[in-house]
Amino acid sequence: MKVIPLGTSSGKPTLKRNVSATAVVREGEWLLFDCGEGTQTQIQRAGLSPNRMTAIFITHLHGDHFNGLPGLLSTMALDRRERSLTLVGPPGIREYLDTLARLKILFVNYPLEVREVDGRSQGGGEGRGEESVAKAREGRLRVVYEAAEYAVYAQPIDHRIFALGYRVEERPRPGRFDLERARALGVPEGPLFGRLQAGNDVELPDGRIAHPSDVLGPGRPGKVVAYCTDTRPCAASIELAREADLLIHEATYTHDLSAEAREFGHSTAGQAAQVAVESGARRLLLTHFSTRFGDVTPLLEEASAIFEETEIANDLVELEV
Amino acid sequence: MKVIPLGTSSGKPTLKRNVSATAVVREGEWLLFDCGEGTQTQIQRAGLSPNRMTAIFITHLHGDHFNGLPGLLSTMALDRRERSLTLVGPPGIREYLDTLARLKILFVNYPLEVREVDGRSQGGGEGRGEESVAKAREGRLRVVYEAAEYAVYAQPIDHRIFALGYRVEERPRPGRFDLERARALGVPEGPLFGRLQAGNDVELPDGRIAHPSDVLGPGRPGKVVAYCTDTRPCAASIELAREADLLIHEATYTHDLSAEAREFGHSTAGQAAQVAVESGARRLLLTHFSTRFGDVTPLLEEASAIFEETEIANDLVELEV
Repeated sequence: MKVIPLGTSSGKPTLKRNVSATAVVREGEWLLFDCGEGTQTQIQRAGLSPNRMTAIFITHLHGDHFNGLPGLLSTMALDRRERSLTLVGPPGIREYLDTLARLKILFVNYPLEVREVDGRSQGGGEGRGEESVAKAREGRLRVVYEAAEYAVYAQPIDHRIFALGYRVEERPRPGRFDLERARALGVPEGPLFGRLQAGNDVELPDGRIAHPSDVLGPGRPGKVVAYCTDTRPCAASIELAREADLLIHEATYTHDLSAEAREFGHSTAGQAAQVAVESGARRLLLTHFSTRFGDVTPLLEEASAIFEETEIANDLVELEV
Repeated sequence: MKVIPLGTSSGKPTLKRNVSATAVVREGEWLLFDCGEGTQTQIQRAGLSPNRMTAIFITHLHGDHFNGLPGLLSTMALDRRERSLTLVGPPGIREYLDTLARLKILFVNYPLEVREVDGRSQGGGEGRGEESVAKAREGRLRVVYEAAEYAVYAQPIDHRIFALGYRVEERPRPGRFDLERARALGVPEGPLFGRLQAGNDVELPDGRIAHPSDVLGPGRPGKVVAYCTDTRPCAASIELAREADLLIHEATYTHDLSAEAREFGHSTAGQAAQVAVESGARRLLLTHFSTRFGDVTPLLEEASAIFEETEIANDLVELEV
């Protein structure tokens, strides 16, 4: 996976940082997390195709996280999108979109499925595959979007209005196919390769049985990216970020402004780092900076002192996960 | 006056042209015409202070002309604006803002006066001063905003939904004060200068009467800027642009796409030029280009052949009027 921050400022844009939006890019498709004003332009700048975006996840209904939705959704209609789009967000987002449609401000002519996620816990079991079911059962994590190769989970985090954190989790992939070993074993090139790779025993031309374990390397765990903004430090974020390869966490303020962070439902850089430590995340990407920080070095220093693998999100600077 | 195009693309932004917005800048204050998504960032790029913006004029309720409103209005609240703001627009704009406020998406903590302008003609007489009353009576032009030194008129133009064109008209200014002549006449420096400049006779220390015409040059007519988008060519635009110093007119298409222009309620560059000719405008600024024109030279050429004083609006390239 690849992560491209599209907007890293809190509240209002600056000339260097647009308001909240983050692209999580996989092969052939990508997901958008939050959609502040101007996101459609940032998408263009990043060289991403809106048509390959399969789902949008909104964290909460503060304008700097979704005011870009009407424009982006309408532009895809202008561009004759046909592919269906899923929009996941907090309760209220459907009424918002319905109102814009009724006022004829929003025009969508492609299939758009809106999923409102509330704070109630889910029984689990919506997950496809054992892994995701297990994960959903373990805590309050809730499967809100599923594709063949990954699932997206959500759960409420701790902002001053209802807000959702998200976790993108790739399903484990089978080990790499060892061509040399397959040939040595006498497996003929062709469909048997695919069946072995898919985890099936196959019968060879000479009657012997070849097993997947004969030709596949060790299974590869899927990558995990967690997205926690806007929020105070909370148990839900720790759960969302459990052993994540990358935790994207807001760091609106420095430690000296922790009273303000608490009051407005935000985190300091140090608190974000503490969430990374407690969740066992491998890397931390700080974002959602107060516009008072023209230079974000103090935020990086504060977090790095607690969690070394910390980086600063900058608009359009992509990270490989 | 100074005009700064903030967005010159139609429908959706490109990397070179944002969606519709234009600043008309006077000394100490400025007016915003349309407010497409991303306008608040363009305002920053132009070096304009939102706090000095006194009024916003929206032409019509297509998203690319006003999706930037929630963000801009909210940012000014974040920035603790205190100055009152007037928002003029078509019917429906109040419901839109009220809905956003009810959904708690929009938060405005400064005085905001919303004026909806419908298609009915006005009796005239709202204008302050003889000029504006005369103008309002002359046709269907309607005074929608007034300040000491200028007035803004509106009237419906011909788009596929209800849309308003605007005309900013400075009041005529008295002639320049001739210091030499005043001194030769024996007018003592001080308050008498101001009274003469304001158009009053004054009594000199030696008992003589000095008249304004003794010390003032010829009266200077106010400048006029007209803003006509989105629209087919129409009589209303000609009236709005009557003898304007600058007509800003949409030119979404070239002549070969005139069927499309007609169908979607737009103008070709040639039609915009014809409006300039018929209105007696001095200069024409083309804007609102279809994104199919990566190079807008064909639009400039088409219009210039009909009206020589034609220019292309480019984002953030300002014009002195």
